[in-house]
Amino acid sequence: MVFKSFRALKPEIRILGVDDGGFVPHVKGLVPVVGVVFRGGYWLDGVMSTEVEVDGFDATGKIAEMVMGSPHRKQLRVIMLNGVTFAGFNVVDVGVLNVLTGLPIIAVAREKPDLPRIQKALSNLPRSEERWGTILRAGEIYEVSVGRGKKRIFLHASGVSVDDAARIVRLTSTRSNVPEALRVAHLVASGISHG
Amino acid sequence: MVFKSFRALKPEIRILGVDDGGFVPHVKGLVPVVGVVFRGGYWLDGVMSTEVEVDGFDATGKIAEMVMGSPHRKQLRVIMLNGVTFAGFNVVDVGVLNVLTGLPIIAVAREKPDLPRIQKALSNLPRSEERWGTILRAGEIYEVSVGRGKKRIFLHASGVSVDDAARIVRLTSTRSNVPEALRVAHLVASGISHG
Repeated sequence: MVFKSFRALKPEIRILGVDDGGFVPHVKGLVPVVGVVFRGGYWLDGVMSTEVEVDGFDATGKIAEMVMGSPHRKQLRVIMLNGVTFAGFNVVDVGVLNVLTGLPIIAVAREKPDLPRIQKALSNLPRSEERWGTILRAGEIYEVSVGRGKKRIFLHASGVSVDDAARIVRLTSTRSNVPEALRVAHLVASGISHG
Repeated sequence: MVFKSFRALKPEIRILGVDDGGFVPHVKGLVPVVGVVFRGGYWLDGVMSTEVEVDGFDATGKIAEMVMGSPHRKQLRVIMLNGVTFAGFNVVDVGVLNVLTGLPIIAVAREKPDLPRIQKALSNLPRSEERWGTILRAGEIYEVSVGRGKKRIFLHASGVSVDDAARIVRLTSTRSNVPEALRVAHLVASGISHG
């Protein structure tokens, strides 16, 4: 694991927020995955993109490739993912993504992931054990308060302490209860999907 | 022409910034065109997209369709274009776009358009007279100072006075010398083009 610790958190810390676009579930195809570079919670500095297979196994590699091939790579301090599953059940191995990019990974969810339900949904897919194993390897889910303590979100952290992850999430959730990089990655990915 | 006048300019005025993505010049194909909804100069509220033909004639219609089909249509007060040519010389008829959408159109350029050079470049394309006519119909190009008067940008305005257009451009150029909606539309359109 490549572990980073953040003593003083710069308000302009560069964050990559990653989310996927819309797609037809269970139908073979490629889904756009968008990465949005934010300076802290305020300014968009860049956009990158890739495509991953519906229910495939290429999300970890494709996201790593997108990040490492980007001119923004050197400025980035953290990668935030909207959950660990993309394009259906194309599961990101957050530990592997951390090692491949050398960056802390924070996977954020608005709702507490319902693991038994996910395990059941997975059971209909090929290589379901492998997918389930990757989800479990993401490790503990932590509950973190945001929005002056009124709201809660859930996160996995890899390569960064939960305390630092929570501070980064709070610092960058300027417009809503999710970090701005993820809010905007979602808007971009869904806005370009039915283009 | 659908003319709007802006007495008090709300800092949260909803602006659509429109720009095109990368493409191989003179090669037949579709180019992504992205529209980014901004609240004034600060917050991204939404993203929409369409595709137009390289050196085609569908930019006006496709952008109008994208705007009118968007759930953001009713909140929008202004459309800003990065110039009047998209995907090569697919020229937007700003007067027609104004009538089709009922919204003021402000076409912005960082450099003063070199009209004789554009006319010459056009001459190699089919229906060059028609394209040239559409460019001329955009009307006068105005020079406007931004960035505390230090920088100048150039604009066409349709359905809005030049003074109002200049005020809107200045109000929303929060991060750079171009309106935030156009800066971000450019980042998104180019970021998704080599996906």
